[in-house]
Amino acid sequence: MTQTPIKTSTGKTFTHLVSKEGGVKYPLKALNVCEETFSPLEVAYDYDEIRRQVSRESIEAGPHSIWRYKAFLPVESENPIDVGTGMTPLVKSNRLARQLGLKNLYIKNDAVNMPTLSFKDRVVSVALTRARELGFSTVSCASTGNLANSTAAIAAHAGMDCCVFIPSDLEAGKVLGTLIYNPTLMAVKGNYDQVNRLCSEVGNSYGWGFVNINLRPYYSEGSKTLGYEVAEQLGWELPDHIVAPLASGSLFTKIYKGFNEFVKVGLVDEKAVRFSGAQAEGCSPIAQAFKEGRDFVTPVKPNTIAKSIAIGNPADGCYALEVARKTNGNIESVTDAEIVEGMKLLAETEGIFTETAGGTTIAVLKKLVEAGKINPDEKTVVYITGNGLKTQEAVQGYIGQPFIIEPKLESFERALERSRTLERLEWQQTNV
Amino acid sequence: MTQTPIKTSTGKTFTHLVSKEGGVKYPLKALNVCEETFSPLEVAYDYDEIRRQVSRESIEAGPHSIWRYKAFLPVESENPIDVGTGMTPLVKSNRLARQLGLKNLYIKNDAVNMPTLSFKDRVVSVALTRARELGFSTVSCASTGNLANSTAAIAAHAGMDCCVFIPSDLEAGKVLGTLIYNPTLMAVKGNYDQVNRLCSEVGNSYGWGFVNINLRPYYSEGSKTLGYEVAEQLGWELPDHIVAPLASGSLFTKIYKGFNEFVKVGLVDEKAVRFSGAQAEGCSPIAQAFKEGRDFVTPVKPNTIAKSIAIGNPADGCYALEVARKTNGNIESVTDAEIVEGMKLLAETEGIFTETAGGTTIAVLKKLVEAGKINPDEKTVVYITGNGLKTQEAVQGYIGQPFIIEPKLESFERALERSRTLERLEWQQTNV
Repeated sequence: MTQTPIKTSTGKTFTHLVSKEGGVKYPLKALNVCEETFSPLEVAYDYDEIRRQVSRESIEAGPHSIWRYKAFLPVESENPIDVGTGMTPLVKSNRLARQLGLKNLYIKNDAVNMPTLSFKDRVVSVALTRARELGFSTVSCASTGNLANSTAAIAAHAGMDCCVFIPSDLEAGKVLGTLIYNPTLMAVKGNYDQVNRLCSEVGNSYGWGFVNINLRPYYSEGSKTLGYEVAEQLGWELPDHIVAPLASGSLFTKIYKGFNEFVKVGLVDEKAVRFSGAQAEGCSPIAQAFKEGRDFVTPVKPNTIAKSIAIGNPADGCYALEVARKTNGNIESVTDAEIVEGMKLLAETEGIFTETAGGTTIAVLKKLVEAGKINPDEKTVVYITGNGLKTQEAVQGYIGQPFIIEPKLESFERALERSRTLERLEWQQTNV
Repeated sequence: MTQTPIKTSTGKTFTHLVSKEGGVKYPLKALNVCEETFSPLEVAYDYDEIRRQVSRESIEAGPHSIWRYKAFLPVESENPIDVGTGMTPLVKSNRLARQLGLKNLYIKNDAVNMPTLSFKDRVVSVALTRARELGFSTVSCASTGNLANSTAAIAAHAGMDCCVFIPSDLEAGKVLGTLIYNPTLMAVKGNYDQVNRLCSEVGNSYGWGFVNINLRPYYSEGSKTLGYEVAEQLGWELPDHIVAPLASGSLFTKIYKGFNEFVKVGLVDEKAVRFSGAQAEGCSPIAQAFKEGRDFVTPVKPNTIAKSIAIGNPADGCYALEVARKTNGNIESVTDAEIVEGMKLLAETEGIFTETAGGTTIAVLKKLVEAGKINPDEKTVVYITGNGLKTQEAVQGYIGQPFIIEPKLESFERALERSRTLERLEWQQTNV
């Protein structure tokens, strides 16, 4: 007996671009701003078609990467650029949770995302796949570092020409971690906002695909996968509360969009998820607006060690504000010293070495718990978005030193005695 | 109609320790050398029991980490320490393969292994799980860097005390990437072999679990997962040829053991796999023995930028030699300059930033292809074992520079013109 196979539709799931304000429609080209309303453009989907195409089972049977959610992403290719990006661990926290007094803490660890160890690999995989579909042979970006690493690496893999723009004062690891892939690298004497403005000018005249400018509507959709994965990894359930870093504000709003889409197509039950955001005090325009009850963001000049999130004029700042407010979340900021403490705390309790942005998020998590703004029972997910090996300068001088010894047992024993004395002193100091 | 569920046996699959020479049996304790034959001890398994427990399907349904192969690993715990280690991408190479003239090249990419970006996370996950079972509360290791990172991180996650020994001249990234987890760190004025000797003395008197000394029989088994994963990721088939770096020689012999075990329990068909090894010329005792037809390894004093594989007196050198010879493979060495070129080549063609050990392996792969020692049609797997962000010094000065520009269109245009002129000159130089 043979069965007629169930026809699987593979129709296109995304239909057009639409302006966030006013709903003006545009074709699926390299466009990012509505000419009428000046608001950003977003990708629009056919959710009935998505519902027909996907189920929990079909997703679980897909690749172990962001492409298991391909029906929710704005690409047509049968073979998108897949370098193993996504499906990073969702770690159930034991030691950090205990230290903070939380009972249901999870860490989404994009510090080990592939290939370049930050969440940017998600957005770049989507953007470069779409860039190829749209016929671009040169790709580019304005970056605070992680995006530069990711664009250069994935462009190298895909054999595309690449020109990357960064502020000239970036951490050494981020510069070298870009140059190694041999792109053209422009180090601009200025902050990220100035780099970004320059790139908009270049974009108009060179016909390049700027992943976070003219390709931004496609690019930014990649961040939704940080929502999808958490929902799937929690056993097809949404968390109660998420804490994520805020730079442009895009990541935050896209996690929100991802959760809502999963509800819309019936993959998870509806739930009120609280969204809390983290900024560095030295660049906290969104946190300031939140505290002051404003619904607009006043640009600031960044001055913080958390360079990867130092965006003084955040493109999606007002949308991030809106999400935090309507979900009963919070937006907090922390000092550079607290950021370093956050990095150390995560490393010492969970064995995860994150960059300054992750230190910011952990420090804000701590601050929110201490202020009673996170309930110990809430199923809370904290998003770690990048790797500490790229911002080594930030912790140099704030961590312990090795004991320098001779290759002899006596020399080791003297050092061990010293280390135990130091531990006792530390213990006495904290237990006076 | 209900079916009787098939009874799944979960009996212990490892039975005792046994000396590599002479087959002397020992109990499953923290022991690594046979007192009668002085040869290393290895874990012995009950392969009939493993065959009863596992199938391709049961493995595929397991966790997305090394623990899907738990039946083949020497731990008893129901909940081994799982921080997402393993199941790194096996990338089908396009651009590197084309450049080298290979048709079936795959890259096993442990540069993105979790949590600390090297294959050492595999062996440490196994060793610390076993250390916990054996009652150790303090774990330790002698390391060239990657093992230090991994032991410190996973011990932090598991809440175990940790003391790590390294040579004092290690790369900055490896020192900081250890200290961040707050272990006791001993930087020994000497090379790895001196560090290792010191640790053996310490091990005898302190009752600590040294992952690569008294726990070595358990620890080293973790490397077998690099064999299992490749076989599974190739669609339950063995490759024709593998190329891997040689430090102590353990990794190499354990990949070989992994393949053979999969054949033994019927998960893959038998196949003659060729094993080729890579060393840095500045520390190539195994390659020298191979060239000279010796079956013993003469220790050397290391002097190379490839510090993570700079072991002058390799514990498993003679077994690695034996594997290369009996599988019709080769062992080659390359200069430091070739190592840097190998790192750049892999980054520029595949978007993978590896450390010096990976540069060594790529450079040896190239050398073997050019010498006609790898057939272009062979299904070849090259093992990349660590991340380039940890050895930034090695490529600093050998990669391009950014163009420093003002945040103005004219400044960008002048730089772009310069970069295009440089490219033309380079093209002319290589096409004279």
